[in-house]
Amino acid sequence: MIKRALPVTREADFAAWYQSVIAEADLAEESGVRGCMVIRPWGYGIWERIQRLLDDRIKATGHENCYFPLFIPLSYFEKEAEHVEGFAKEMAVVTHHRLIADGKGGLMPDPAAKLEEPLVVRPTSETVIGTAFARWVQSWRDLPILINQWANVVRWEMRTRMFLRTSEFLWQEGHTAHASADEAREETLKMLEVYREFAETCLALPVVAGEKPENERFPGAVATYSIEAMMQDGKALQAGTSHFLGTNFASAQGIRFQNANGELELANTTSWGVSTRMIGGVIMVHGDDDGLRVPPRIAPWQIVIVPMLRDNDEDAALIAYCKDLQGELAKLSALGEPVRALLDLKPVKAGPKRWGWVKKGAPVIIEVGGRDMAGGNVSMIERHNLYREDGKLNSVVLPREAAIAEMQLTLENIQGALHAEARGRLEAGITPAADFAAVEAHFAEGKKNPGWVEVQWARPTGADLDTVVERLKALKLTLRNVPRDAKPADGACIFTGAPAVERVLVARAY
Amino acid sequence: MIKRALPVTREADFAAWYQSVIAEADLAEESGVRGCMVIRPWGYGIWERIQRLLDDRIKATGHENCYFPLFIPLSYFEKEAEHVEGFAKEMAVVTHHRLIADGKGGLMPDPAAKLEEPLVVRPTSETVIGTAFARWVQSWRDLPILINQWANVVRWEMRTRMFLRTSEFLWQEGHTAHASADEAREETLKMLEVYREFAETCLALPVVAGEKPENERFPGAVATYSIEAMMQDGKALQAGTSHFLGTNFASAQGIRFQNANGELELANTTSWGVSTRMIGGVIMVHGDDDGLRVPPRIAPWQIVIVPMLRDNDEDAALIAYCKDLQGELAKLSALGEPVRALLDLKPVKAGPKRWGWVKKGAPVIIEVGGRDMAGGNVSMIERHNLYREDGKLNSVVLPREAAIAEMQLTLENIQGALHAEARGRLEAGITPAADFAAVEAHFAEGKKNPGWVEVQWARPTGADLDTVVERLKALKLTLRNVPRDAKPADGACIFTGAPAVERVLVARAY
Repeated sequence: MIKRALPVTREADFAAWYQSVIAEADLAEESGVRGCMVIRPWGYGIWERIQRLLDDRIKATGHENCYFPLFIPLSYFEKEAEHVEGFAKEMAVVTHHRLIADGKGGLMPDPAAKLEEPLVVRPTSETVIGTAFARWVQSWRDLPILINQWANVVRWEMRTRMFLRTSEFLWQEGHTAHASADEAREETLKMLEVYREFAETCLALPVVAGEKPENERFPGAVATYSIEAMMQDGKALQAGTSHFLGTNFASAQGIRFQNANGELELANTTSWGVSTRMIGGVIMVHGDDDGLRVPPRIAPWQIVIVPMLRDNDEDAALIAYCKDLQGELAKLSALGEPVRALLDLKPVKAGPKRWGWVKKGAPVIIEVGGRDMAGGNVSMIERHNLYREDGKLNSVVLPREAAIAEMQLTLENIQGALHAEARGRLEAGITPAADFAAVEAHFAEGKKNPGWVEVQWARPTGADLDTVVERLKALKLTLRNVPRDAKPADGACIFTGAPAVERVLVARAY
Repeated sequence: MIKRALPVTREADFAAWYQSVIAEADLAEESGVRGCMVIRPWGYGIWERIQRLLDDRIKATGHENCYFPLFIPLSYFEKEAEHVEGFAKEMAVVTHHRLIADGKGGLMPDPAAKLEEPLVVRPTSETVIGTAFARWVQSWRDLPILINQWANVVRWEMRTRMFLRTSEFLWQEGHTAHASADEAREETLKMLEVYREFAETCLALPVVAGEKPENERFPGAVATYSIEAMMQDGKALQAGTSHFLGTNFASAQGIRFQNANGELELANTTSWGVSTRMIGGVIMVHGDDDGLRVPPRIAPWQIVIVPMLRDNDEDAALIAYCKDLQGELAKLSALGEPVRALLDLKPVKAGPKRWGWVKKGAPVIIEVGGRDMAGGNVSMIERHNLYREDGKLNSVVLPREAAIAEMQLTLENIQGALHAEARGRLEAGITPAADFAAVEAHFAEGKKNPGWVEVQWARPTGADLDTVVERLKALKLTLRNVPRDAKPADGACIFTGAPAVERVLVARAY
């Protein structure tokens, strides 16, 4: 049995394994501030890559970025509370604007600096952006408004898990206003498709895009769509959502326009977002018992060069050899961008350095020792394929020129291999279940990694849907979404026996 | 007299002119949230350009980005309050984590959800990052730590002015820890130089880099350096700062390391930052009575193509002609990056559209009418050079191919021209003053745009410095910085008559 780099395996304890990847790969750590994390350079570097690649797509579809205030006056939520039933109340509330000495050697909020109206730290910017839209929109000529914001938001969470659920997190929120419901629906689905393509192409994260059932809709939305990814423990992770809001928010916020006939109409709006949660998905889809494996498109460094320094006279020549190699690699392009190659000269011994990069999941690790240099060679490790069949480390000596010549292909292959592996798991992990008993059997107690089931249903609403949700909840299951590309229904609803109208995914979820 | 695009000129009322540029160029607006602004797409696009270009430089000098929490526990400031005299107390304080109905149809902070320890919305991340450094640093091998954060911060401000002083603003804060004071000093000056070069090259903003006098130091710093820019009203704007913190912060936060001899030492730290304030500087340096003029390097769109549509059959051909032009321009590179060209097809008449882009300050506006198209021409306006000598709009008809062929040079010339104009103003605006009476005369009441004076001084400290500061304050003047490249002192201190040791700049400031 191979000794793995992490202290715990996925098999032994998936939740502990997840935490250990985050720690050992230097992705993030507890901050000492309740529910908030410190995102360390390797974790933040992945987020920067996600931002860059997704932002390009958001702009290419005609959206512009702007920035709205962190604070939202309490009264804005009073308006919303009237209109929206599922109003979320766990929010950070700013009540004072000054600290003073408390007379006991400490500090306290100054009672004389109490705000007349408390300010809420934005949990989402719907209300403040809606208010701006109402100012900006007068005529049909002002529509559509297509904007996006990259920001931090805060939702007070009692139980937090790094990347997956933290009180503060980073995200983008798109908000758009349109002259017609059709155009807004089209926008909602366009951004869902942007998310799907982005997840598959950039994160190598296979997802199912579909509509959430009524009970999982964003409060106030007419329709909510999601992309759902399958983690290695079989649970689902909602990795992005896109909402068609109809005129509900426009009505609450007064987003009205004069149409071409001079009549006043309500705009139709949408919103859509993804967050640092995606990084949790990348970990749970691509990680293994040696740490993370980062897909090359989102790897801060795609190639890390480690010279095997020995504190002797040869070191200078070795460093020069590696610098030259780094220069050659940096001239290449792969996956549509310049190659990102790091020469790691930190004063750490070569062994721990190698394993550090294995745990971080750099796609390619190139080690260069004196013998490699003498032969004009390099020793190369592809992180997604770490061991040979005999259990030894799969480090391949090859001519320097060959490594350079094949690097573009190598990186593209790694991106493809990670995606194919995860795609195979997703497809193998979805099982049709013909009736409720089959669902119960599938998720029977003690069964490891049951994946998801696909069932047919009559799309109940109201109290009937509540009953369905309760039955599933007893099995710790949730409705995920109705896949856009599912086959038409051809059977009976597993909950009611009525003729089914569509297929829906059922799973345990994060 | 030419009718200008803005309702107020710089000459008539500089402060009102500044606000009108921000409004008319769609840069930002009041948000309805006290002291916070909405940064609109054109303003945020400039910030994105600033981020991209500065971030490249921050990374090229070996720094990595990370992300620290928005909230800082109150107790962290108690530690700091003990050590730092100039402790800033105007901060937003979070005291509750839930809203509930107040029984009167509104909402209120839930008394049952009062935080045990209040959380402060970060005014800067010094303390929380220092605490992380203390965790990360054990051995000299862990040093240097070179990190940077792009974030929003909040400083409660009673009197706000958009971009220049807002309660919430966006910035980057670099924080580094080093094994020696020399290395930390070198880092401090390196980043000062990065800021200087960035301001001059990218913002076309001529600045004076130098050390702030003792009274203007960041609380707890051993030395504070700044870049200072001259606005068109002659006032100074501090556009970026870099601090050498010695071991002061390391001592407060316990950042210790074992040196190569096994002894425990305190690290030396630095911090440095620039903010959205820079955009205020760009406005007040490059704006004119027709709006903003954005230097091409930071213009979200460098070229805007406006087809003169007439709602007739010719429109389709005109749009095709413009699309083709846009495609050709997008293939070009200028100033080291791909050219950014927009085809503006919004349903707005060509006249208002042209003036909209003039006010926004797009560097090049290309208008194409039927006659232009028929002749294979375009009509081109360079924003920095808007009028001919006869006062007419300087719109030049030239062959399409010539416009394309010369565009790289055109954009580079515009960048250079804006810089040269501002550089000339800065140099002409600094006047030596041999004694205090000369300073008084220079800044005599009612004098418009007095610029700055350079004086020699003996660098007084403590109470002597306080006296100097008070004398200057009576004239509404402040000490700006001691220019790094000033000539050596050769006279007497204008405040004390003692032999001078250096030259220092004195000015009114934002």
